[in-house]
Amino acid sequence: MMKYSQQDLIALQDFYKKQLLNDTVPFWFPRSFDREHGGFLLMRGADGELIDDDKAVWIQGRATWLLSTLYNTVEKKEEWLQGAKLGYDFLNKFCFDTDGQMFFHVTRDGKPIRKRRYFFSETFYVIAAATYAKASGNEEAAEKARRVFGECIAYASGEKKMLPKFTETRRSKGIGVPMIMINTAQQLRETIGDPRCDEWIQKWIAEIEKDFVKDDIKCVMEHVAPDGSIIDHIDGRTLNPGHAIEGAWFILHEARYRNNDPHLISLGCKMLDYMWERGWDKEYGGILYFRDVYSKPVQEYWQDMKFWWPHNEVIIATLLAYLMTGNEKYAGWHKLVHDYAYQKFHDAKNGEWFGYLHRDGTVAQTAKGNLYKGPFHLPRQEWYCTQILNQHLEHAIKQ
Amino acid sequence: MMKYSQQDLIALQDFYKKQLLNDTVPFWFPRSFDREHGGFLLMRGADGELIDDDKAVWIQGRATWLLSTLYNTVEKKEEWLQGAKLGYDFLNKFCFDTDGQMFFHVTRDGKPIRKRRYFFSETFYVIAAATYAKASGNEEAAEKARRVFGECIAYASGEKKMLPKFTETRRSKGIGVPMIMINTAQQLRETIGDPRCDEWIQKWIAEIEKDFVKDDIKCVMEHVAPDGSIIDHIDGRTLNPGHAIEGAWFILHEARYRNNDPHLISLGCKMLDYMWERGWDKEYGGILYFRDVYSKPVQEYWQDMKFWWPHNEVIIATLLAYLMTGNEKYAGWHKLVHDYAYQKFHDAKNGEWFGYLHRDGTVAQTAKGNLYKGPFHLPRQEWYCTQILNQHLEHAIKQ
Repeated sequence: MMKYSQQDLIALQDFYKKQLLNDTVPFWFPRSFDREHGGFLLMRGADGELIDDDKAVWIQGRATWLLSTLYNTVEKKEEWLQGAKLGYDFLNKFCFDTDGQMFFHVTRDGKPIRKRRYFFSETFYVIAAATYAKASGNEEAAEKARRVFGECIAYASGEKKMLPKFTETRRSKGIGVPMIMINTAQQLRETIGDPRCDEWIQKWIAEIEKDFVKDDIKCVMEHVAPDGSIIDHIDGRTLNPGHAIEGAWFILHEARYRNNDPHLISLGCKMLDYMWERGWDKEYGGILYFRDVYSKPVQEYWQDMKFWWPHNEVIIATLLAYLMTGNEKYAGWHKLVHDYAYQKFHDAKNGEWFGYLHRDGTVAQTAKGNLYKGPFHLPRQEWYCTQILNQHLEHAIKQ
Repeated sequence: MMKYSQQDLIALQDFYKKQLLNDTVPFWFPRSFDREHGGFLLMRGADGELIDDDKAVWIQGRATWLLSTLYNTVEKKEEWLQGAKLGYDFLNKFCFDTDGQMFFHVTRDGKPIRKRRYFFSETFYVIAAATYAKASGNEEAAEKARRVFGECIAYASGEKKMLPKFTETRRSKGIGVPMIMINTAQQLRETIGDPRCDEWIQKWIAEIEKDFVKDDIKCVMEHVAPDGSIIDHIDGRTLNPGHAIEGAWFILHEARYRNNDPHLISLGCKMLDYMWERGWDKEYGGILYFRDVYSKPVQEYWQDMKFWWPHNEVIIATLLAYLMTGNEKYAGWHKLVHDYAYQKFHDAKNGEWFGYLHRDGTVAQTAKGNLYKGPFHLPRQEWYCTQILNQHLEHAIKQ
């Protein structure tokens, strides 16, 4: 067990803020602004060289979110606002198909390459447009954010259907949908506001609690049958501890919003506890990517790799749980995962983090940006931790 | 440089035959026969325990091919013929959709779970039905093999189209289609015969030579533009050395069929040379899974893992190249990859091979069978190497 003293927390706050502003953000911007075609050029190697000029729609939205959020909450830096506009305009101009659904992958000049059968491009569009609307005061962006959020609700609730990937034989649902919708609604609510958010967030949390959190086996499932039962096949048994822990902090964040709602604190901490136990690698440190609920072999051969983003999510979740509960266990976990991640993932030479380590912590792939990795999980972690430490320390000083 | 003496070759032949019949085949059969629902139960953990009772259509077809081929070429064992019938009947009864396309993944009792947007289930059906037709004398199986082969030709030539995964913006084609079609046609020709095979095989080889083999950079591409040019984006740059080397031995096999056609020998050996250089891991041994043609980071984070099947294909290709050319380089490579593979992948305790190693050769995942791995690449390698060594040694004795 360990405690963080106020000095420790001040040092942490200082560390995250410096990493964010002097290391992570400057790795990406301004060099990634595409002043010719709009949007961002984000597929970069270790030292920042461009390895591909294609654009991943998720990441275009997420980068727009980041720049807008920095502008809204850290500093009114004109470069960030102009950058956010580049992203927001590119998304509107090139990333929607004629049927209203968004693409997944487009060329540098916005020609579509691939559309996928889920709506995550749309959820990242919502947080991009909502934060950009707040940053710019652009009323049209606010309207668009709300309209696409409505589309996302329709998909999430099953009212609208995507082209299915699987038959109806063995229906399943993933925790990803209620999770991402909670976060999307939280972002919308905290920037431009929307009367639908509170009620829907409540529903999605209730769905996670009822169908995905299994107290009897101390586990958060990644996929379940529509009635919440465990699907005892390889895919149904596969757990993603870092993802479940990301869900845990979205729920802790909601608990804070609701004056430290004790039920939500207990739910979020429980999810963190269950999945730390299943995900933390006791041999090498770090969060294992996939696990089988009954410890059978996982389909994905790379299941024991260490990815950057689960570490960002676990750093947030453990710090937030510690600040909200004072439980020293969480300070200990936070220190473990923080030290592991900044030692193993951080590229001290060129800035930013590598994305993919072997189980033993050696680097497996050196790209800083690709179709799935860009300026999101790491800067969000450094930004969010700075914010909650700020608030905690301010509150402590007032008392 | 090294040579294999005749004694070495006899020892190798003996080794492969014993591994096939005393280790690999008994791991799977008869315990995997599903006498209740038909087909095979192949998703198994390290010691053979069933980890999932679902059925992967590719592997149902491949296992049917294996059992029929053993019956046709090794021994008229009733168990193998009965097993092949279980697979063949299951494929016919449950694995075709009403539109004639095949599924990818079904439940134990044959309910469809997933259909994919390519036709590899169909190609494995063709080799299953053709070899089963020869084993059983069942004329209907021969007709079905020929009919579905016709469907595959229609897909491969673009006459019939699958639902596309990508837009038309950046069209590409993979070496996988001409490769698998060469092998499918070779199997058909060598079991029940089909007048279309020779001409189509010639066309597919010509396509590989013209569009995928790049002499200027000594490389075999995995994907190219329709005109054969390199697509300089992450996906277009990604090479799969083990796959290209599988293609190399299909072409060497064709060269043998055509009385050691020197042009085809030179083409097959060149493909092997280029991709050995790019795929062999000089640090840890083994074949690396993916490489970037210009040594940039590969999108797939697990790109440096060692999978079982490329090792099977490289063992075949190096042995065949050695037997056909006598070039001692190939004996040296064969010994390297053979020793690596039987040391690192083979499970001496329970039989069969593990499927997935970390780059350093430690086991990453212990399943022997899953949606993609089953009784195919390893037993095919052990069977094919036994066959070509037999023929080589018989020929040597005659001289």
